[in-house]
Amino acid sequence: MEPIIITAKGCNKDDYTHHGNMFLTGNGAMGVRGTLCEYRSEYMPAVNLCGIYDRVGDGWREPINAPNGLFAELSADGRKLSLPDSEYSEHKVSLNIRDGIYERETDFITDSGCVCFSEERIVSLADPNLILQCLTVRSDHAAEICAHTEIDGNVWDIHGPHLENFVCGEKDNICYVSAVTHEKSIPINVRETSEYDFPAEERRAVSDKSSFRDISFTAKPGESYKIYRKISVTAGKEHDLSSLGSYENEKAKHIAKWHGIWDVSYIEIDGDEAAERALNYSLYQLNCIAPRHSRSASIAARGLSGQVYKGAVFWDTEMFMLDYFLYTEPQVARTLVKYRIDTLGGALRKAASYGLDGAFYAWESQEGGYDACSDYNVTDVFTKRPMRTFFRDKQVHISSAVVYALDKYVEITGDTSVLNEGGYDVLTECAKFYRSLLLKKCGGDKYEIRDVIGPDEYHERVNNNAYTNAMARFVFRAAAKYTGSQEYKALADEIYMPKINNDGVIEQFDGYFDLEDCCIDEVRSRLLDPKEYWGGAYGVAAHTQVIKQADVVAMLSMLPDEFSDDVKKANLKYYEPRTEHGSSLSACMYSLLSCAVGDPEFAYPLFMKSAEADLRPGGKEWAGLVYIGGTHPAAEGGAWKVAIFGFAGLEIKNSEIICSPRLPKAWKSMRFKINYRGDIYDIQINGGDWSVTKL
Amino acid sequence: MEPIIITAKGCNKDDYTHHGNMFLTGNGAMGVRGTLCEYRSEYMPAVNLCGIYDRVGDGWREPINAPNGLFAELSADGRKLSLPDSEYSEHKVSLNIRDGIYERETDFITDSGCVCFSEERIVSLADPNLILQCLTVRSDHAAEICAHTEIDGNVWDIHGPHLENFVCGEKDNICYVSAVTHEKSIPINVRETSEYDFPAEERRAVSDKSSFRDISFTAKPGESYKIYRKISVTAGKEHDLSSLGSYENEKAKHIAKWHGIWDVSYIEIDGDEAAERALNYSLYQLNCIAPRHSRSASIAARGLSGQVYKGAVFWDTEMFMLDYFLYTEPQVARTLVKYRIDTLGGALRKAASYGLDGAFYAWESQEGGYDACSDYNVTDVFTKRPMRTFFRDKQVHISSAVVYALDKYVEITGDTSVLNEGGYDVLTECAKFYRSLLLKKCGGDKYEIRDVIGPDEYHERVNNNAYTNAMARFVFRAAAKYTGSQEYKALADEIYMPKINNDGVIEQFDGYFDLEDCCIDEVRSRLLDPKEYWGGAYGVAAHTQVIKQADVVAMLSMLPDEFSDDVKKANLKYYEPRTEHGSSLSACMYSLLSCAVGDPEFAYPLFMKSAEADLRPGGKEWAGLVYIGGTHPAAEGGAWKVAIFGFAGLEIKNSEIICSPRLPKAWKSMRFKINYRGDIYDIQINGGDWSVTKL
Repeated sequence: MEPIIITAKGCNKDDYTHHGNMFLTGNGAMGVRGTLCEYRSEYMPAVNLCGIYDRVGDGWREPINAPNGLFAELSADGRKLSLPDSEYSEHKVSLNIRDGIYERETDFITDSGCVCFSEERIVSLADPNLILQCLTVRSDHAAEICAHTEIDGNVWDIHGPHLENFVCGEKDNICYVSAVTHEKSIPINVRETSEYDFPAEERRAVSDKSSFRDISFTAKPGESYKIYRKISVTAGKEHDLSSLGSYENEKAKHIAKWHGIWDVSYIEIDGDEAAERALNYSLYQLNCIAPRHSRSASIAARGLSGQVYKGAVFWDTEMFMLDYFLYTEPQVARTLVKYRIDTLGGALRKAASYGLDGAFYAWESQEGGYDACSDYNVTDVFTKRPMRTFFRDKQVHISSAVVYALDKYVEITGDTSVLNEGGYDVLTECAKFYRSLLLKKCGGDKYEIRDVIGPDEYHERVNNNAYTNAMARFVFRAAAKYTGSQEYKALADEIYMPKINNDGVIEQFDGYFDLEDCCIDEVRSRLLDPKEYWGGAYGVAAHTQVIKQADVVAMLSMLPDEFSDDVKKANLKYYEPRTEHGSSLSACMYSLLSCAVGDPEFAYPLFMKSAEADLRPGGKEWAGLVYIGGTHPAAEGGAWKVAIFGFAGLEIKNSEIICSPRLPKAWKSMRFKINYRGDIYDIQINGGDWSVTKL
Repeated sequence: MEPIIITAKGCNKDDYTHHGNMFLTGNGAMGVRGTLCEYRSEYMPAVNLCGIYDRVGDGWREPINAPNGLFAELSADGRKLSLPDSEYSEHKVSLNIRDGIYERETDFITDSGCVCFSEERIVSLADPNLILQCLTVRSDHAAEICAHTEIDGNVWDIHGPHLENFVCGEKDNICYVSAVTHEKSIPINVRETSEYDFPAEERRAVSDKSSFRDISFTAKPGESYKIYRKISVTAGKEHDLSSLGSYENEKAKHIAKWHGIWDVSYIEIDGDEAAERALNYSLYQLNCIAPRHSRSASIAARGLSGQVYKGAVFWDTEMFMLDYFLYTEPQVARTLVKYRIDTLGGALRKAASYGLDGAFYAWESQEGGYDACSDYNVTDVFTKRPMRTFFRDKQVHISSAVVYALDKYVEITGDTSVLNEGGYDVLTECAKFYRSLLLKKCGGDKYEIRDVIGPDEYHERVNNNAYTNAMARFVFRAAAKYTGSQEYKALADEIYMPKINNDGVIEQFDGYFDLEDCCIDEVRSRLLDPKEYWGGAYGVAAHTQVIKQADVVAMLSMLPDEFSDDVKKANLKYYEPRTEHGSSLSACMYSLLSCAVGDPEFAYPLFMKSAEADLRPGGKEWAGLVYIGGTHPAAEGGAWKVAIFGFAGLEIKNSEIICSPRLPKAWKSMRFKINYRGDIYDIQINGGDWSVTKL
């Protein structure tokens, strides 16, 4: 594998949100936003921690951003050199996704000449608590340099401040900032060492929430001065920095880990460099947030890119991200599945709170399965009042995603041990949950599921959403398959499935076809405020057939064996023009289904949209004054699904690996590996031909 | 019976809405708003026709206002004498409710002295198509008078113009204006004769939509000049004015009819003249709109006071107005019940359109049971967009009101003939309808009714509304009782009834007790716009326990035998402070229940509020620029119910008339009559004693 480098040149003040996401580094335990090291909280730097949540007052519960140990700022001859304000001749940020290394290089212009400042940033894949940072200064003239490095406790928070009781200090050449979270007093410790081999004067000091060093030295023209920093971040026990190897040693271990990942994950596409680059970049993002530090953890909808969406785990993980790990690193998939098993308690409590049986998983899951989703999740732009939304209580398809993932995990890996470690309970409790949703009319012969929201969130409180009913049936079948339950087998046959009309189109929910059938532009033209919510009771889309995202199409993509190609084609054709794709989960579902029906050209732009979700600026970044941006791991996982299941047409049938290639025209060939039941297979697609080789 | 005169003195330009209602005259076939005879359409005069509806374009379907044959305007010595602009020394409008006669008298001041103009107005109770109007002119000085009378076709319309193809003319001394309705080309004919016995010059002429006469004469000082007008209004065949008796003769017939009504209806209250007056006035209003001209017709929610609420029949008739007629003039009650029997077809079609069985009666019923209720019945004050409302499709309790009324009619009158004339079909089809609403959980033992609106319209799409479920049970029991159906008997026992909590309070619907419990003033204080809708998905009341009107309390009032006094007391106490009484149907329900639990003092102000609904100005008259005022016959019917069933405590038990008096303190005694199974009974209450005498 050649290195793939993602680069941005020049510094635009407004790039900080997009670059924060695009240049993210991370190791699953923590994510470091790709902002510049001299950026303070207004530019939203973050060392975002996996699974550590906090709540302040009535604000949303959200994950912690640890004190930013990466802060570093230069001054030369007493003048601060700092972006975005200082003058520069060249500035470049790049990300080497093969090695997992972030680099930044800036040539600052001073009165006396040029001072080059560069940073190498590594969030160690070998040590979940370790960040490496190497700062390099090179001046083309003699200059008095001061490198100010800091553990900055004034972190960016959306609903904070989450940290309190700060203790800042230094001891034995280690700077530290410790604090505890507001809600549960979880200790957060950041510690830092600096090493350099040139003469310098060092001053260490603290402020209320920070601990810093000023390393002052005289730079000779043309000479490079390097400061090697090791920064540990822990929730709980402090990290023993002295036990670590040298910077280069730790860096080598990190790179080796990344190379190990790419050995299996890397996908070669001959004929389409842009796609190859975007797709592998997508896998880079997924690997930065894969929870390898734990045996039971999951991935938030915005990964580790900040506090957006409360750092909560959505169905995105099960439906969009799981497959990539399942086929490349099953241990990560197991960790994701185990998270749901271990949060069953929260799901049981949630169901009970609604008077329902079994397990109703959290729509926005935090630790222990706590549902962070509010009953008032949207603010009315006209009245500024919170609007009652039903994501938490009516989006009942969430539990089916958990079962779907568990079933896939067992089917693909053959690892039935998760079943005995709680998987059976999940199956049984989710089946119980759906059973308790079933309603039969007096004298009726089928069970209905009423008053739900399907994947398309623009239509609230609908009856017999096709996706929901089909997934409930899937759950009953899975429960029957694993537990032998005859009752669930029978219920699967008794659940009402929306009819297919004469054109082969499945009605998204009861009465959908009666809604106004108008185009997306028409609906958009009715907006009185560009920021108003399209859904809800009175939104512009609510009483039309315009939908937010794949719904029937998601069902057809997720349950491909249950529907014919003709039905898939008809529904793709019907629903695509009616879909706003207002969710990053949408495009890949359409793309996948297009491949399934043999139309990779239609699929291609939707695939690229998914794969480039974090490479392109734009998208919905702000809801009023609230930042809702961040990385899009579900779109990235979706891109992998399209490439592998869609274009390559990979299937496992009777334990055999089979491909049905339908490559986009531009793709001459494609090569990738999968891990199937412990063995690595090398798969090559050349046009319509394919081969699989066990390595 | 002494005459009861309702009077208003002086002319205030803004009185026209309130006076139009308070001084209404009518005979069931038509209602004439109590506006002045010289008022043109901007002051909203109306000759409102029962049961003749029209729709123009996308406007609401609403009843017709016929060309206004009552228009009359005076001039003296070439100067117009016309309110509200001309100078006057005295002006008085009065209504003699005993005789059913409207009178107006104005002393206009002219440069030469005083000209007195008076009008007597009678909407004949003896002839459903006849209006009598006597104009009197008396000048205190010699004056050249011109009385301009007109059939004014430029009528007040809310969503019109409804009339077209006007033909205006005069023939054989009869002036006429004919037109047809827009939608169905129903011919509307207004004809007029004038008689007078003094020398005058008469000019008759027509304009586009009007036909008029100018009667010019020289008035001698102090002498009265009378013009007797007979105006016929018909939808369909023209009326033969020549076959009528003299004005005085027709007037006498009219008065005799009113006296006949009062012979049974009049209620004496000793010790509280205000209550006596208001209560009998309420009965006046009900009698003006009782459809005696038909064997199958009903009463609109705003009676015949205009086009508000589309002239449609709501549950108001069955639940609030029926009883008065049932106990005083059963033939009218039969006509009301027959209307629902004869509109069963519309109810069957409506149910089928929602995929339901049986009869789902119109929420806003027009001819043939057509449901005039729109899916978008409220306009959002913030966006000016129509809001999706659910009155039409979710207020399923409407069909139970029809069965309730039918059952009461048969129980009280013993007239089972209505059953064979379609009543059985109504019972069966309504029971089928509720059966098709029943849902049972998988493994459940009770049937639920989900996703409805109860009487309290501020809470949409709720499950297991206590009122709705209890009334559905009532329907099943009624169906079982009349048809012997064992299935419905069983269903009545299988329907889920909301639990009674430890305090004896019945939860209005599933989850009501979990809503924010805050006071009405608090909810009101959250309004951003005084005109915003309290209900809907996001209204200020929607997520609180504040309700629009009696709901659980309506259930307890309507089904008194099914609940204990303790439960009634507990719910009255709980719900009253949480009730906005935003509907005129609310107060009387609370009042009635207060009497039932022995608290007539609490009941009294609520009773007066109902009885005086049209005697006091104010109330909700405007929704933005749309007039929503009119008379309040349901409140007036409710006042009768409180007086008779509440304060007097009348019950029929095993065919025996029983009273349980609980008079308000101020009431020394009370005397009234009822018609029970063809006999008239005189009932006297003296404090806690009572007697009943068959006449």
